[in-house]
Formats: sequence, structure tokens, C-alpha cells
Amino acid sequence: MTEAARELRVAMVGYGFMGAAHSQGWRVAPRFFDLAAEPVMATIVGRDRDRVEAARRKFGWQRAETDWRRVVEDPDIDIVDICSPGASHAEIAIAALDAGKHVLCEKPLANTVAEAEAMVAAAERAASRGVRSMVGFSYRRVPAIGYARRLVQEGRLGAIRQVRALYLQDWLSDENGPMTWRLDKEAAGSGSLGDIGAHAIDLVEHLTGSRLESVSGTLATFVEERPLLGETVGLSGTASTERGRVTVDDAAWFTARLDGGAAAGAIGAFEATRYATGRKNALRIELSGSRGAIAFDLEAMNELQFYDATAPAGEQGFTRIIVTEPEHPYMANWWPTGHAIGYEHAFSHQIKDFVDAVTGGADPEPSFADGLHIQRVLAAVEASAGSGSAWTPTA
Amino acid sequence: MTEAARELRVAMVGYGFMGAAHSQGWRVAPRFFDLAAEPVMATIVGRDRDRVEAARRKFGWQRAETDWRRVVEDPDIDIVDICSPGASHAEIAIAALDAGKHVLCEKPLANTVAEAEAMVAAAERAASRGVRSMVGFSYRRVPAIGYARRLVQEGRLGAIRQVRALYLQDWLSDENGPMTWRLDKEAAGSGSLGDIGAHAIDLVEHLTGSRLESVSGTLATFVEERPLLGETVGLSGTASTERGRVTVDDAAWFTARLDGGAAAGAIGAFEATRYATGRKNALRIELSGSRGAIAFDLEAMNELQFYDATAPAGEQGFTRIIVTEPEHPYMANWWPTGHAIGYEHAFSHQIKDFVDAVTGGADPEPSFADGLHIQRVLAAVEASAGSGSAWTPTA
Amino acid sequence: MTEAARELRVAMVGYGFMGAAHSQGWRVAPRFFDLAAEPVMATIVGRDRDRVEAARRKFGWQRAETDWRRVVEDPDIDIVDICSPGASHAEIAIAALDAGKHVLCEKPLANTVAEAEAMVAAAERAASRGVRSMVGFSYRRVPAIGYARRLVQEGRLGAIRQVRALYLQDWLSDENGPMTWRLDKEAAGSGSLGDIGAHAIDLVEHLTGSRLESVSGTLATFVEERPLLGETVGLSGTASTERGRVTVDDAAWFTARLDGGAAAGAIGAFEATRYATGRKNALRIELSGSRGAIAFDLEAMNELQFYDATAPAGEQGFTRIIVTEPEHPYMANWWPTGHAIGYEHAFSHQIKDFVDAVTGGADPEPSFADGLHIQRVLAAVEASAGSGSAWTPTA
Amino acid sequence: MTEAARELRVAMVGYGFMGAAHSQGWRVAPRFFDLAAEPVMATIVGRDRDRVEAARRKFGWQRAETDWRRVVEDPDIDIVDICSPGASHAEIAIAALDAGKHVLCEKPLANTVAEAEAMVAAAERAASRGVRSMVGFSYRRVPAIGYARRLVQEGRLGAIRQVRALYLQDWLSDENGPMTWRLDKEAAGSGSLGDIGAHAIDLVEHLTGSRLESVSGTLATFVEERPLLGETVGLSGTASTERGRVTVDDAAWFTARLDGGAAAGAIGAFEATRYATGRKNALRIELSGSRGAIAFDLEAMNELQFYDATAPAGEQGFTRIIVTEPEHPYMANWWPTGHAIGYEHAFSHQIKDFVDAVTGGADPEPSFADGLHIQRVLAAVEASAGSGSAWTPTA
Repeated sequence: MTEAARELRVAMVGYGFMGAAHSQGWRVAPRFFDLAAEPVMATIVGRDRDRVEAARRKFGWQRAETDWRRVVEDPDIDIVDICSPGASHAEIAIAALDAGKHVLCEKPLANTVAEAEAMVAAAERAASRGVRSMVGFSYRRVPAIGYARRLVQEGRLGAIRQVRALYLQDWLSDENGPMTWRLDKEAAGSGSLGDIGAHAIDLVEHLTGSRLESVSGTLATFVEERPLLGETVGLSGTASTERGRVTVDDAAWFTARLDGGAAAGAIGAFEATRYATGRKNALRIELSGSRGAIAFDLEAMNELQFYDATAPAGEQGFTRIIVTEPEHPYMANWWPTGHAIGYEHAFSHQIKDFVDAVTGGADPEPSFADGLHIQRVLAAVEASAGSGSAWTPTA
Repeated sequence: MTEAARELRVAMVGYGFMGAAHSQGWRVAPRFFDLAAEPVMATIVGRDRDRVEAARRKFGWQRAETDWRRVVEDPDIDIVDICSPGASHAEIAIAALDAGKHVLCEKPLANTVAEAEAMVAAAERAASRGVRSMVGFSYRRVPAIGYARRLVQEGRLGAIRQVRALYLQDWLSDENGPMTWRLDKEAAGSGSLGDIGAHAIDLVEHLTGSRLESVSGTLATFVEERPLLGETVGLSGTASTERGRVTVDDAAWFTARLDGGAAAGAIGAFEATRYATGRKNALRIELSGSRGAIAFDLEAMNELQFYDATAPAGEQGFTRIIVTEPEHPYMANWWPTGHAIGYEHAFSHQIKDFVDAVTGGADPEPSFADGLHIQRVLAAVEASAGSGSAWTPTA
Repeated sequence: MTEAARELRVAMVGYGFMGAAHSQGWRVAPRFFDLAAEPVMATIVGRDRDRVEAARRKFGWQRAETDWRRVVEDPDIDIVDICSPGASHAEIAIAALDAGKHVLCEKPLANTVAEAEAMVAAAERAASRGVRSMVGFSYRRVPAIGYARRLVQEGRLGAIRQVRALYLQDWLSDENGPMTWRLDKEAAGSGSLGDIGAHAIDLVEHLTGSRLESVSGTLATFVEERPLLGETVGLSGTASTERGRVTVDDAAWFTARLDGGAAAGAIGAFEATRYATGRKNALRIELSGSRGAIAFDLEAMNELQFYDATAPAGEQGFTRIIVTEPEHPYMANWWPTGHAIGYEHAFSHQIKDFVDAVTGGADPEPSFADGLHIQRVLAAVEASAGSGSAWTPTA
Repeated sequence: MTEAARELRVAMVGYGFMGAAHSQGWRVAPRFFDLAAEPVMATIVGRDRDRVEAARRKFGWQRAETDWRRVVEDPDIDIVDICSPGASHAEIAIAALDAGKHVLCEKPLANTVAEAEAMVAAAERAASRGVRSMVGFSYRRVPAIGYARRLVQEGRLGAIRQVRALYLQDWLSDENGPMTWRLDKEAAGSGSLGDIGAHAIDLVEHLTGSRLESVSGTLATFVEERPLLGETVGLSGTASTERGRVTVDDAAWFTARLDGGAAAGAIGAFEATRYATGRKNALRIELSGSRGAIAFDLEAMNELQFYDATAPAGEQGFTRIIVTEPEHPYMANWWPTGHAIGYEHAFSHQIKDFVDAVTGGADPEPSFADGLHIQRVLAAVEASAGSGSAWTPTA
């Protein structure tokens, strides 16, 4: 088989929001990046036959299946991309890895630490056979984040002492908004903390090379009951009443001590919320160091604020870098200077990096072990919140 | 032929920056919008066989051709999408329209008013036979622009009295940057004025429904000679010298009187430049009306600033609308609230609108006649600049 | 005594940064606001004769004294304005109040809860005799804050569920910066927490009408030793060594539960730091409610961001209100629309309000009791930080 | 007379907006800056006895007079500060200078070029006798402007090729707003052009050291009649009708060629308007050079945006400098880092500079000759606008 003809046949499990985003990644990445193998959007998997067939047509996959086991067993499939709800991740990923498929798994890695641990074990078994696994913290692939990381690694921030990491959304701020499965602990595992707080944790660790070693946390549920929609499937036992009980956190705050990396000894302040009225998707990271600082807000994702504390005194200030230059990660492959990219581009970058790892024989990042670590941080925050915010180790 | 099976076979001429952008539009639009026919990326056309074949593979077209006449004559082609340099537009578009192909033609419509007039005549002939034509002012399809237009149409700005429209880039601000074909009048037609000033004119007219009826303009060339690169193809007569002569405008300014629409009687101040140090792609539009104002900057393309002068006095201010809500044009088909789109999305929206027009039997906008009008405005600015900024009618 | 002739003779204790700011308040307030009595800058008090005389000339006071008891005993003095270090507040304020002088006392009210309690007792005794007292949380008098409070009171934010309050400075981010008395616990009482965190607490309570009822806090000292300057007066026992020991917090974080007012049941996240590289004086408050939100940053003190969640869906966004309209608190007395005021104007407003209360026979706010409450919150944060961030009541 | 005892006795003519601002300057400057002589606010002059007496009390002057000739003749007066309407400037200034008084004259220097020429002649006569004169373009004294100028002088912008200078206000955007004397040519001389456009011209010339040598301009009056208020004094011949005729420009645009200084050969685009809906006091200057750029907006007057085109490619961006550092002009005498100053501070700086010049025996800037030049630019813009925007020399 010639280099040019090499293909990687992909099966994707799930067809919701993440299914759409991952499909766009598989579709677009090879059109802008030179990949050593051409991904083929072979099979999409979903439980409902009509809906998965509709998704197949919509997203442009070749075939549709209703049982994920079929693709795990399919010798023509090289990669399994898992976009289904978190509770299903462990079973699918372990089976796929054991069957020799490379696995890209959406975050969070799993709904529990135990599941995540089993997944890491499977990933390690697989790695020894050259089978790759990665967890999909896509925001790592936003160019502004990549460039910020480079600045940290070059020592431009010096010793980082403080971290602020907030993920602010507001889609629950109206107390009359409906109950959904995302607000039910059985279905969703956790609320803001796991859904969006996990991104904040991962980005801080990715940017600094440090780890959150202990946390003091608080969780809150502001609105404890919400009106049920007509369709209440998935909300156990609430179908016949008029209001559903919210059993996950609406918001989470925690303080963390960091260890290792550029932020060794730093303290981080985290918040994840769906009640930050007016903030739509404001994932904000600020790193304050002895020589400089960076600030990022996902609501302006093509920008990075950089403060150089070594510049002449009168000239210091946050520089608004428009992260669309060829010098910036991934950007040389897109449009000319000043032309913005969007949310989904991070998924194309994720595919590029994943395919590079698969074809290049390297282990991609973030690994399942990284995903497990995030899971442990989330569990530690919950444990701390359950014991009066007592400081709790993450390992 | 069933509805679901209906296809539109597309041929695209050109494979440069615009070829990449249009390809992405054809590729992505049907995956996010429900189109009455599925576009098929059939044939890409370019003069250089090796390069067009490389582009075919890269962009994902089925076939490559080196002569645009082949696709004009091909009975299987429904649509011709013209992304080649401006000097070639008239010949290709007229032939394609006369052959019954729907035509999408990149802006500027042509390099001269005379060519544009011939294209409009062909478009009118074609329209009478149900063949559609559109010129590709893609920024009309940025959701923030679409929403701003809606606000204007709803009267939220009242009588618009002033317009500010600047398109600021800086890629020439280094005087040691090389000579390119874009700085040669024979090859490029004009400089900043036609390349980016045309967008500013089109957006103002699109937003307000008004027309620039007369202009007073100034052009300047700040750096008159630039170092030649080794490859000087396309720069007539300069190949043997060490520096090339810049024969187009580096920057253009003009004041315009508007007529008709929401800005009847207004005065607009325009600037287009490649010397605005630090401004990468700042297409800025501000409309000041008796009841409100809007401000837009392409460098923050997911935002629209809206000022409601009818709000209570103490509460007035520019509201930064993050244009990612389902209520905003095109956005219901993309990602959840707060998730940004990028530059290329406007091309997907352009394809959606063009396909809707073709399948729905409507004439799309902007028409070739609109493109001709822009051409006349550009010509009037040049004429005014050539006669001491004397006010010059555009028709 | 005629209205025009009525005077209030003022003595001010202290001549540092706050002495300069208060002097400007006394000097300027009567020139822009109609006061029922004309303040006379009678006597300035400081321990060092030469320096207080220099300050007298510089600031424009009539007389200088070196012993504060002289002004407390002076029958011609109506008001004592205390700007000396916190450790001296209680003794001076109690003596002045008992002597029948109205007292304006800089924040923090005292360095300890016990001192603050004694001051409250004195203030209550005095109030029964018509003698007024106020603590100088000057930021309450920033017009944007006053206007935000009005929006909260009018219910424009609905039920406030979340508060973010950060006071970010960076003057310690260079670890080679010198040791100063502000970093010595004996001299300064506390570090960031009491110096700037107190402002954040007061503003949140002022804006919402709510009280912090319990807190979970963390304190950190990032740089534990700093080079001593030649003059080490006030640093106990460190004069002969080369490095001084930092004994206060460099940064403080705490989560708080709020009770009463518009933010009953809300949770607030607070941070006070002198290590936020690049942030010079960023006192940032964000209130997230069921019907709206406000955001304020002291680095842009003439602006208020207001989000109206009841506006039409497509039009929602943070509105940048330039708080210079006649409708905004205090602003009708300054300059035309759009003309900024600065930091010191809050001190003129403070004098206006204090004089209004004194001449109008009303008790001004914030009262000494309010100041005591803040002190208790600070003490609770320190207690919580000392016991592993355990939740600690503030009363 | 000892140094410490030296006084400068000031008389101020006028008590409107500028009278209040200048009074604040005289009052505050000596309290924050070390001046070689102490200004004494001796006499305020106004034609209406009651109003000038009220202003005297309000602003804190020692005496009030109703005839400006009295202060010109008063041997105890050292300085005459002219804040009366433009039509009165020439007569007062010439008399005062001829009487040996130093003169600070508000801008515009005069309402006509002829008057301004006579004033320059008087200023030159006076200068030969050591008598100083200055015109009050106060925005030169905004620290961000001073710092920007320093960057230009140090060559940090390289060759400046483009200038954008807009002064945007919106107080006329409501067409039902009343007629005022400012809209009557006889009373006001001109409209936006002279009132605010003059500031834009002066700042550009001050920042660059260049001069506008020719202009192509356009003027417009959008609303030609406005409702008369009950009191129509000063509007000749309109008292008995219900609507008054607007006889000045509502907005002005002009393009200018610059000569000399850092912007030799540059082209500037200017706009002055009272119809920029939502813009309250937006004096915006942007200078684009071969090595860098600066951008300033008076609505955020404590900030300066600086772009360094010589920084590493990936790090370039506009740096938001908060202009409150000791390194910035005038700021070491105010508050700590990060504490904003306001509009009126420029007037204190103006007094400081004027007093420094008077006591130091230097000619202050901007001189009456500078003021005359601005007047000639304004006249050239009007002449150009009157002749179809034909390019018109300014000298």
C-alpha cells in the first residue's frame, strides 16, 4: 500500500452535539492538514435506527450501525471515536482497545474513578501493542491555548503563583427553565463540575505542566426543582409529577494547591457554573507569574492577552495578541492573518494530532491516565464539598 | 428523481485562497443546513495541471480540468463557481451563463466597468431562462451583519445619518516587504480600494438598503518601489531590475453621499488600507442613527455592538451581543450558545443561500447588477481622486 | 448664624496617601456640591513636626499639630477625620466621639475586632447625642457602584445567586521587591485580606444589601522573605539582618454564603491579592441574578456593564454604560456627558455625603457597626484559613 | 520676597463650563505639583453681577468683577485666564498682553483668522518683554497623550504614514433636541469643526510634530431646524418663531496631507461630529507607522494602546497600557499605580506647565501662533467644503 493510498477507517459512537463536532473534525482535518493517512468516515453507531440513519446522512458517514459491538468486531475499522454519554465510555473503550482499535474518547473519560481506572489499564495493555488512546479535551487545541503554553514553557511567565480558572455559562439562570437529563445525577454523573469544570482543570494542567494535588471545594444547587417537559424519559420515577428534582451541582468552586511544572506551589481558584448570567461560554484562564501573565477567554477564542513584566516600566500592559499568525499553533494551515477560526476547529486539530500519533507511532496526549487524573480531581472536589470544604488530596 | 436524490453538480474555477474557502463552503454547508439538493464537488479547474491535481486531492474534488471551457460545455455540470483572478471573470461567467449554468462569481465582479456591464447583460439573459447568478460578497453572510441588517430594517436605528466603514490591514506596513502581483495595476486592477474597500461598500449598502450616489476620494501609494522576489512572473517588464514599481493604491479614503434606504441623506466616511499597523483584518462598520447605532469589527466577528438610544437615559450604552444565539441568522444550525464560528462559515452560508435560490427558483443576492454598481463606485472614487477629490457621481 | 455663614471646622489626623486623598475631598467637594455648611480645613495632625508642617503647606490646611489630643480638645473643631494607621483608630475615634466631634474614620475601622467593638460602643453613645460617625469605604461613592446598587434595588437583577469579587494588584509580583511595614503583621494587622479584600466585602454587601454569614477561606504567603531597605523602622527585630520576614498574607481567597437582601442564599467567591501580575488596581465585582447581571472593574471606573436577561433573546448582551450621565449618582455636579472622573472623586462624594448627614441630622453610612461587621468577616476568613478552610460563621 | 512667598495673582474671565474647569486647575495644581510660585485665585470676571458673584462663591475666587478691563488695569494681577466665548478672546487677550499680563486663552484662539493674527502679533510684542501667552488645548496634558508623544519622538512608530483622528459626540442625534447658541453661526463661529475638530487637529500635530498642509473637506448639517426654547437670547431674529435655523456644521470630515515631523508625507482622515449615536466624548487618535502604532480614545483616557511592530511575530498585538505609572507624564504626582485620573486633571497639568513657563522664563506651548495655525486649518476645511472638497492649502 503506498503512502498516498493509506487509509484509516473510523467508526464513531454517538450522534449528539459531540458527534456533530467530531464528524466535522474528521471531515475537515485532512483537507487542511497533511496527514500521513486519510481518515475515512466509515461507520456511525447509535441505538435508535432511524436517528442514526438520519445522522449518517446528515454527517456524511458511509454506514450506520445500532450496536457498537459491531464496529469493535469489524476488522476494517482502525479507529473507534466515542462520543456517547459518559456512562457508556468504559465498556466501549475497553472492548475497542482490547480489539486493537485506536480509541479517541470524549471527556469526561468516565462517570466514576473506578471506570476510569479500568480504562487506563486497558489503555496500557493496548499501548504495549502499539494501540493508541486519547481523551478529547479539545480546548487544548485552541491555538491561543497552544501559544500560551509555549510562552509558559519558554519561561516567559517565570514562576506562576496564581491561577484563576472559571468556566461560566448561564443556561440555567432562568429558574423556570425545564428539567433535563443533565440535571439528574444518575444520568449525568455530575453537573457543572464534571461537564465544564473538567475543561478548566485540564487546561490549567496542560498550560502549566503542574498538577492539582489537593483541593478545598464547595458545591451548590440553587434551583432544586424544575418543571418537567412532557417527555421525561431518563428521569427515574418523576414522570408522573409536575416538577423534577435537580440532583447535580449547579455551580462549583474550589481552591487548589498545584505541584510540579511551572506553577509548583501555586494556588488556583476555580469556578464552574451554569448561572453566570450573561456569560455564554466564558472559559477564562489567567496565570500570574513572576515575569509575566496570560489571560484567555473562550468567548474571544482568537485572542490571547499576554503581559510581559520584564518590558520597560512605562510600556507594560496586557497585549491583545490576535492568534491568527503563521507563528501560532495550527494557524499556518488555515486562512491569512486576521481571519478568525471557530469552536469546531479545535476538533480538526484534535484529529490531526490523533492521526499524527497513530501514524507516527507516538502516544497522544491527553492520555487516558490524564483523564483518570481529572476524574480524581473531580472526585476530590466532591469529597471536600461533602466534608465542609476540608482540604482533600487528589491522589 | 426523488427529492432526496437530487444533486447539484459543481465545477469550481481557481484553487487559490478563494478556492480553498469556496471548497470548504461546498463541503460543509450540506452537513449543517438542510438543502433541497445535495451539492457534489465534481470538477476543479486550473491552468497548471500538476497544481490543479494537487488542489483536487487536497480540497476533495472528484475531477480536475485545465480548461474552464470543458466544464462550461459539460452537460453534467449545474453550477460554475468562479474563484479565478478578476480579469478572467467576465469571459468565464458569460460563457457559463449562456450555457445555462448557474454562476457564483467571486468579488470583485470584474476588473472594469465595461466587463461588469457585459456580465450583467448575460445574467439578465440567463435569469429569463431561470439560470441564477450571484456575486460572492461573503461578509454579508456573517451572522452579526445579518442581525445588524435586521435591526436596521426594523427601524431600531431610526434615520441613519452617518456611516463609518473602514477596512484596515497592515501587511504592507513594512516597506521592505516584497513586490507582488497584487501591487501591479495590470494584474490586480486596483489595490486596497478594489480588494478590500469593495467589501466595505457592499456591507454598507447591504446593511442600510441605501446606495452611494456620489463620492469624493483620495488615493495614496506610500511605498512606490519594493524589492522583487526571484519569481517575477506577472510583473510586466520588471523582471530584470531589482525593485518593482507599485502601481496601485496602498490606501484609499472617500466620503460618500447616500441615497435611498435607511441611510437616505447620510454621509459615509470610508477607508481601505494595507498600512494600518497592527490591524490584521479590521473591517469596521458603524452606523449612527436617530434612534440607535450599531458597530461591528470583523476582528471580533462573533460580536455586534448595538446602542439603543430609546432606552432609559441612565442605561444607555453599547451592548456587546455575542451573536451565537438561535435567534441570530444561520446560528441555529451550528453550535450551542456562546460557541464561536470563524471566517469560513460565511462561505457555507453563501452556499446555503445560493443553493436555496437555485432550488427555490429565486434570484439570489447580491446580483451581478449589485456587483456592477460596486464597480461603478470604485471607478468613481478613482475618478474623483484623479481630479482633486471633486465630487463624482457613481452612476 | 446665616445659612451662608455656617461652617464646619475639620481636623484631619494623618498625612500619607489617605491624607492626600481626604484633603482633596475636603477641598473640592464644596466647590461642586451644594453643602449646607462650608467645611474649613482647619488643622492637620501628625507626629513628626517637620513633616506635618510640610503636609500642611502642601495640602492647604490652616494649622498643624503633632498631638491628636489637641484637636479632640479644641472646641472650635467640629469634625475629626482619621487617616492614620489602623492601630491608632480606636483611641482617637473614641476620644473624639466622646468629646462630641463627628468622626470620619478611614477603613479598616480597626486592626482587631475588640477595638472595633469599642468604637461601635462609642459611636452609639455619640449618636444618642447627635454626633455622627462613618467609616471611609470610599468606593461606595464611585458613581458606577451607586448606579449598580440602584439597579439591584429596583430588582433588575432579580434574585442574585452568585457573586464574584476580586481585588487584584501586582506590586509584590517581583520577589525582589523590598520588605515594607505593610508586610509585617504587627504593623499592618493583615495583608491583602484586610487592605483590599475589605473593600471587596464592603462593596458586595453595599450593592446587594446582603451579609456574608459564613466563610471558607485560604491564605497564602508566596514570598516569605524580602530584602530589607536601609530604613527598617517598624520592622521589629529585623534591622540587623539582610532579609525581612513577611508575616502577612500575600493573597486571600474565600467562599462565602450570603444572607438577607437581594443576594439571600447566594454564594460569593472572593480573592484579594498583590500578585496578580499586570493587574494594577482591578477591583472587580460581578453579580449574577435571575433577571440580570452587573460587572464592574475599578480599572475602568467610569463604566458599568449591565446585562438585562429580560431583553429580547437576540439583543441580550452586556451593555457598557459610560457612567457620566446626569442620571448617574453625583455626576450631574461634575462635567458634561462623557467626561471621566477619577479615583479621588469618590472622596469628594464621601465628604458630600458625610456633611449632608452631619448637617441634616442623619446617621451616615457605612456606620462603625458596618465597619465592625467587615472586621468580623476578615477575622472569620483568617480563622477558617487556620482550620483547614472549615466553614466559619462571621457573627 | 522669598521663593516660598512668591505669588501669582490670577484673574479669570468667564464662568461657564471652562470657568469651572480652569478654576479646578488653579485650585488643585499647587496642591499636587511643586510650583515655583503659588497661584492666587484673585478675581473672577463676568458681565452679569449676580451670576459672577455666585460663581465667585462657588468656585472660590476672592473677588468678582463685571468688566474685564478692570483686571487688565489692575497692577496686582499677574495672569489673565480667558474662558469667555471665542468672539471676545482677541480684544481681551490683546489688551491684557499689552498691559503686561501673562495670558492663558481657551481654545479656539479666536473665531476668525484675522482676530487670531492680531493676537499673535500681540503675543510676539509681549514675548519680547517676557510676557507669556498660551492657548488652552488641554488634551495635550492627558498623560496618555504625553506618553504617546514620547513614543513617537523616540522613533517607536517609525515613519507615520496614516493618521485617523475622530472626535465623536452624540448630543444632537435626537432631532427634537432644542436649538442653542452653539448652533448659531453668529454666536459660535462654527459647529463641530471648530468646537471639537480643533482638538483633533491639535493633538495630531502635537503627537507627530507635523503640520496639516492641505485639506479636502466636507461639512454637513443634518437637522436644519430645531425647536426654540423659551429663552432665545443670542439667536438673532428667531425669537418670535417656533423653530430656529441651525447655521453651523453638524459634522465635518476632512482628509489632510501632513508635512514635517514624524508624519511627513502621511495622510490623515479626520471627523468631528455631534451625531455619532452612543459616542459621548470619543476623541480617538490612531497613528500607523512603519515600526509601530498607537491608538487612544478619550472615553478610556487612562489607557494607551501601543503596537510594537518590531516585537517577535507571534507576540505582536496592541498593548493596553494603563497610564498611571510614575514613568508616565504628570502621574508621579497623583495616586498609586492603577488609580485613575479624570477629565479635569488635564487642566491642573495645564496650570502646572503654564506656571512653570511663567516662573521659568520660557515660552509655553501651544503658543498663540499654534492657535492661529489651527484656525487656518479650520478655515481651509471650510473653504474646501465650500468648493466641492477641492484640496486647499492651510497657509
